[in-house]
Amino acid sequence: MIIVLKKTATDAQKDFIRNFLKKQGFRVKEIVGKEETIIGAVGTARMDLRSVELLEGVASVVPISKPYKLASRELKPDDTIVQVGAVKIGGNRIVMIAGPCAVESREQMLSIGGAVREAGAVILRGGAFKPRSSPYAFQGLGEEGLKYLREAGDAYGMPVVSEIVSTTDVDMMKDYVHMFQIGARNMQNFELLKVVGKTGMPVLLKRGLSATIEEWLMAAEYLMSSGTDGVVLCERGIRTYERATRNTLDVSAIPVIQKLTHLPIIGDPSHATGIRDMVSPVSLAIVAAGASGLTVEVHDHPEKALSDGPQSLYPAQFEKLARDVQALAPVVGKSLE
Amino acid sequence: MIIVLKKTATDAQKDFIRNFLKKQGFRVKEIVGKEETIIGAVGTARMDLRSVELLEGVASVVPISKPYKLASRELKPDDTIVQVGAVKIGGNRIVMIAGPCAVESREQMLSIGGAVREAGAVILRGGAFKPRSSPYAFQGLGEEGLKYLREAGDAYGMPVVSEIVSTTDVDMMKDYVHMFQIGARNMQNFELLKVVGKTGMPVLLKRGLSATIEEWLMAAEYLMSSGTDGVVLCERGIRTYERATRNTLDVSAIPVIQKLTHLPIIGDPSHATGIRDMVSPVSLAIVAAGASGLTVEVHDHPEKALSDGPQSLYPAQFEKLARDVQALAPVVGKSLE
Amino acid sequence: MIIVLKKTATDAQKDFIRNFLKKQGFRVKEIVGKEETIIGAVGTARMDLRSVELLEGVASVVPISKPYKLASRELKPDDTIVQVGAVKIGGNRIVMIAGPCAVESREQMLSIGGAVREAGAVILRGGAFKPRSSPYAFQGLGEEGLKYLREAGDAYGMPVVSEIVSTTDVDMMKDYVHMFQIGARNMQNFELLKVVGKTGMPVLLKRGLSATIEEWLMAAEYLMSSGTDGVVLCERGIRTYERATRNTLDVSAIPVIQKLTHLPIIGDPSHATGIRDMVSPVSLAIVAAGASGLTVEVHDHPEKALSDGPQSLYPAQFEKLARDVQALAPVVGKSLE
Amino acid sequence: MIIVLKKTATDAQKDFIRNFLKKQGFRVKEIVGKEETIIGAVGTARMDLRSVELLEGVASVVPISKPYKLASRELKPDDTIVQVGAVKIGGNRIVMIAGPCAVESREQMLSIGGAVREAGAVILRGGAFKPRSSPYAFQGLGEEGLKYLREAGDAYGMPVVSEIVSTTDVDMMKDYVHMFQIGARNMQNFELLKVVGKTGMPVLLKRGLSATIEEWLMAAEYLMSSGTDGVVLCERGIRTYERATRNTLDVSAIPVIQKLTHLPIIGDPSHATGIRDMVSPVSLAIVAAGASGLTVEVHDHPEKALSDGPQSLYPAQFEKLARDVQALAPVVGKSLE
Repeated sequence: MIIVLKKTATDAQKDFIRNFLKKQGFRVKEIVGKEETIIGAVGTARMDLRSVELLEGVASVVPISKPYKLASRELKPDDTIVQVGAVKIGGNRIVMIAGPCAVESREQMLSIGGAVREAGAVILRGGAFKPRSSPYAFQGLGEEGLKYLREAGDAYGMPVVSEIVSTTDVDMMKDYVHMFQIGARNMQNFELLKVVGKTGMPVLLKRGLSATIEEWLMAAEYLMSSGTDGVVLCERGIRTYERATRNTLDVSAIPVIQKLTHLPIIGDPSHATGIRDMVSPVSLAIVAAGASGLTVEVHDHPEKALSDGPQSLYPAQFEKLARDVQALAPVVGKSLE
Repeated sequence: MIIVLKKTATDAQKDFIRNFLKKQGFRVKEIVGKEETIIGAVGTARMDLRSVELLEGVASVVPISKPYKLASRELKPDDTIVQVGAVKIGGNRIVMIAGPCAVESREQMLSIGGAVREAGAVILRGGAFKPRSSPYAFQGLGEEGLKYLREAGDAYGMPVVSEIVSTTDVDMMKDYVHMFQIGARNMQNFELLKVVGKTGMPVLLKRGLSATIEEWLMAAEYLMSSGTDGVVLCERGIRTYERATRNTLDVSAIPVIQKLTHLPIIGDPSHATGIRDMVSPVSLAIVAAGASGLTVEVHDHPEKALSDGPQSLYPAQFEKLARDVQALAPVVGKSLE
Repeated sequence: MIIVLKKTATDAQKDFIRNFLKKQGFRVKEIVGKEETIIGAVGTARMDLRSVELLEGVASVVPISKPYKLASRELKPDDTIVQVGAVKIGGNRIVMIAGPCAVESREQMLSIGGAVREAGAVILRGGAFKPRSSPYAFQGLGEEGLKYLREAGDAYGMPVVSEIVSTTDVDMMKDYVHMFQIGARNMQNFELLKVVGKTGMPVLLKRGLSATIEEWLMAAEYLMSSGTDGVVLCERGIRTYERATRNTLDVSAIPVIQKLTHLPIIGDPSHATGIRDMVSPVSLAIVAAGASGLTVEVHDHPEKALSDGPQSLYPAQFEKLARDVQALAPVVGKSLE
Repeated sequence: MIIVLKKTATDAQKDFIRNFLKKQGFRVKEIVGKEETIIGAVGTARMDLRSVELLEGVASVVPISKPYKLASRELKPDDTIVQVGAVKIGGNRIVMIAGPCAVESREQMLSIGGAVREAGAVILRGGAFKPRSSPYAFQGLGEEGLKYLREAGDAYGMPVVSEIVSTTDVDMMKDYVHMFQIGARNMQNFELLKVVGKTGMPVLLKRGLSATIEEWLMAAEYLMSSGTDGVVLCERGIRTYERATRNTLDVSAIPVIQKLTHLPIIGDPSHATGIRDMVSPVSLAIVAAGASGLTVEVHDHPEKALSDGPQSLYPAQFEKLARDVQALAPVVGKSLE
């Protein structure tokens, strides 16, 4: 850490600061300039920087280590490829994940599953446990929904992904899904991260509603330090003052993430925009920015969907989108998985 | 809901929209103006407004019902008074909740408990399960911590409150605490809300990091519809672009909440600001804006605290703050509990 | 507007509200439902909705008219094509605007001008008046800079665009530039908008640092109602809590703007990201989302640039970007201007 | 500045970085730790830190000097007291500025002026040039409005403050007002800041809609480096995702500003909340947090106000507020001016 001293700092204060840091196990050096004096402290000790900030004579304190390790590209320079069933996510592939927001029935899953598979999807999605902001809204079919999801995945040769919302569901769910999804609202549900990480299974980790990129990588670190290597990050829009779209897709996060971590990143245009008309242009933007794929909500009868119908594409729209993504892929040096 | 039509909407489109709404169970009326035509639809049916937004001829759709009922002041105009042990929260009282961020030892709790009690606190706080953004940080003492918290509360005649982070801890925790705390990161952990609500016990519900006031009240609605009446809201700062403080305390939320709901609201200056120097001025602002109390982190050795030391007041500072709050209370027509 | 009544509203209050609205010139209709009663008021009268919100018995008021007219796609469904010198912006073209952040010297402008022209730029940019957050930073060459900019533009057959920061510069600047730029910090400098609009010349209108899409279109309305038809909107990132990039590019704003207005929209990846490495991926995202072009900062010696060097591309990087944009254009049904 | 090196940085890269910094005039020291190596660079040279960030081997760069000098409390530890006519702002005084949003007529100003004077206001406010987001809204009476404002101020012995929106109005306005107001939308209209600063007159500088505290102090620095010492900062709410109030009053900014600068800070509850009911509780919060005063909109017929009527207090409400402020002042060690 770097400690910037006040211009008025006394020698006694400086001594106190230096001793305080040494006692914590830091190596300390001082740099005296015309306009400011700074103390650099390096070491493996961990402490809340604000403790130093409160010492007499200190103007400000600046952290220099990244708090995540396993997720850092410095530790592992090569791209991680995450294996989900027979599908690989990462590297030069673009993966299309598609399906309805919520599993509603066996027929629905078989119908939509077939449609998205034919259009180019390679992983099937569908929610069985739905975290809804209203207690009075449809909360999902639960285990029954997972059965239909898996049956449809098996029928069309696609691994499946579904959101987990409770630590008590892990054992049951791992028999159905090939990949767990951690939703935005649970990105900092650390108990859930620990339990899911312990399974060692791949995880699709959505960015929290207002998570910084660093907090997002710390959530990945929770998963990785608990036992899983296969974390796929998913940008799904952040909360800003702008309300014209449901969230604001942070497209720049894609190259930023690729610089900071070896983990693959995909995008979710459905939750980012919240409205069907915007899904395709935003999908293309995500791929053009270099993402490793998309997760898109598709419904054959969006007007009857029990959840998020208005942001679901019709199968024909998804097919058109998949063709556009295929045309776009070579421009960014990639090809469809 | 209100449907604003496009100027170019055809008669056929209008008919379709009207029929669509009637089929969903709405009463429909049309108002034709010079600049715009609108359709009003009222009824008890629930649907995703975006479904209507996507119909041909529709310019925009506007909701008119609030999504929360039990938490609404329209349903219950009188202030709710929440009983926590022998302490009442709400009405014309100002309640002081204080204690360390994390329970660290039996001695610590007894020492701090005695100090805050003497200074004017009436409820004792202390975290046994700490949701930390880093998996490598101190995660709390667990059940052992709850024992120390309760022992200290009993020793000084104060009911106790502590944060719950996992559904599996409810049964164990309810024997120790008089009030559950739901932390900001779990405000939309709906599974946790349902399980905690079922206990019927009082709950201190912190506002989510970037929760709107409406989402916050919907989280209260989850608790109330699951079985508890005693929800105390706690404003603890929201995430904004400004980084000079840890969060931005939304002081206006206090009168806004009091207009919308009958539930009491208190403030948390420690998490809002993140730094000791700012805690007292912000505490006074919270009380002056009309809040029913404060929850303040106090530590006798903040420099050795295992969590959030830099934002903890020294006991003497807390005592001074309590005296200032006492002097301020009559200005806003209140008195200390 | 729509007035939602409180459940407790009395008949006398309802009468008062109805009369109040009629006196203001509104046509009024009431819709009585089981859960709520609403009053719809339509008409051409303009008033601050909050005046109605404060009447007794009113729960909330909802606006239904868009406040902009000339900029609205409802008024003019066809895309506006803006003519800047011999260059057309809008429709199925993709226009590349490039040049240094600040004009620094005659040599610099001629050198960079030639390089970007060869790479595919069709409009030359360069700042002569720089709005800098520090009074101690380089503030631009002023009129001398405009001379160099224009000379370089003429030398390579490119019209030129430059930012205006003061109403007193309009007369002087209009002899040099083919298009005025209004910067983000001046998007709501209404005096400047009025004076620039009066020239009738094309304007590149950057989105304000934290402007909503509606406020941005209102700024365009200021320009249009003052006398210019040729407004090109430029998305350049908005301020959010995320600091990994300088701003957060709101890529979804592109399709949203295209739905709401007939004016063309382009993107500025340089200011959005603030760092060279991110410029190319974000540029491709902007084009993939459907924008009509890009404005990109290019410098032949970024390390010596007097302003924003770190976000400027090297000419060779810009050339590579232009080739990628050319490859991408047909995927979104467009071609380079 | 501090340069954190990548773990993979080579010796050649380190040499290059050190030389680069020395050439710019910095003194350079290196600190080698187990987990990271950092280079500290101190000196008076000014450069864009991002230039260093882009060098090979650099992981990140951290600034250590504050960019403002004249406004800094390090330069001038004692509180600045700003003299406006016979009124002093700062120190242990609480100053009440009040008046209508816009000057509408001579009668209005005389009537409201008398009412607020009697209630306790010591400075009279009123807008003659109104920056409105719609070009179709009332834009103010201009110079005529300033005459009425001054006449009312003189009649009741109050100095007057009014917003300036154009550099061309400075000479005319300085004959009427005792203090210029720079509005939120013009906080970074640097041309205006320079011209107003040159007058040497006191300035009420509102915080920009989404300005950081540092940017706000840089705007003060523009004024001070142009020639005025008397800058009063005014917190008026910032833009956040929360829409329940017009803006989110950043109450913590008050103690933060007092730590960073010697300039006085007051608060504007009217623009912060946008609605009358919230003005009084938020006013008390501002004073309780330690501010040096309030600027409050008051109107004798808010329902007929040409601008911002809904957020204006009735004179009787203002009188009640002034009494509450008087009762509150001693709690924070202050008294009314």
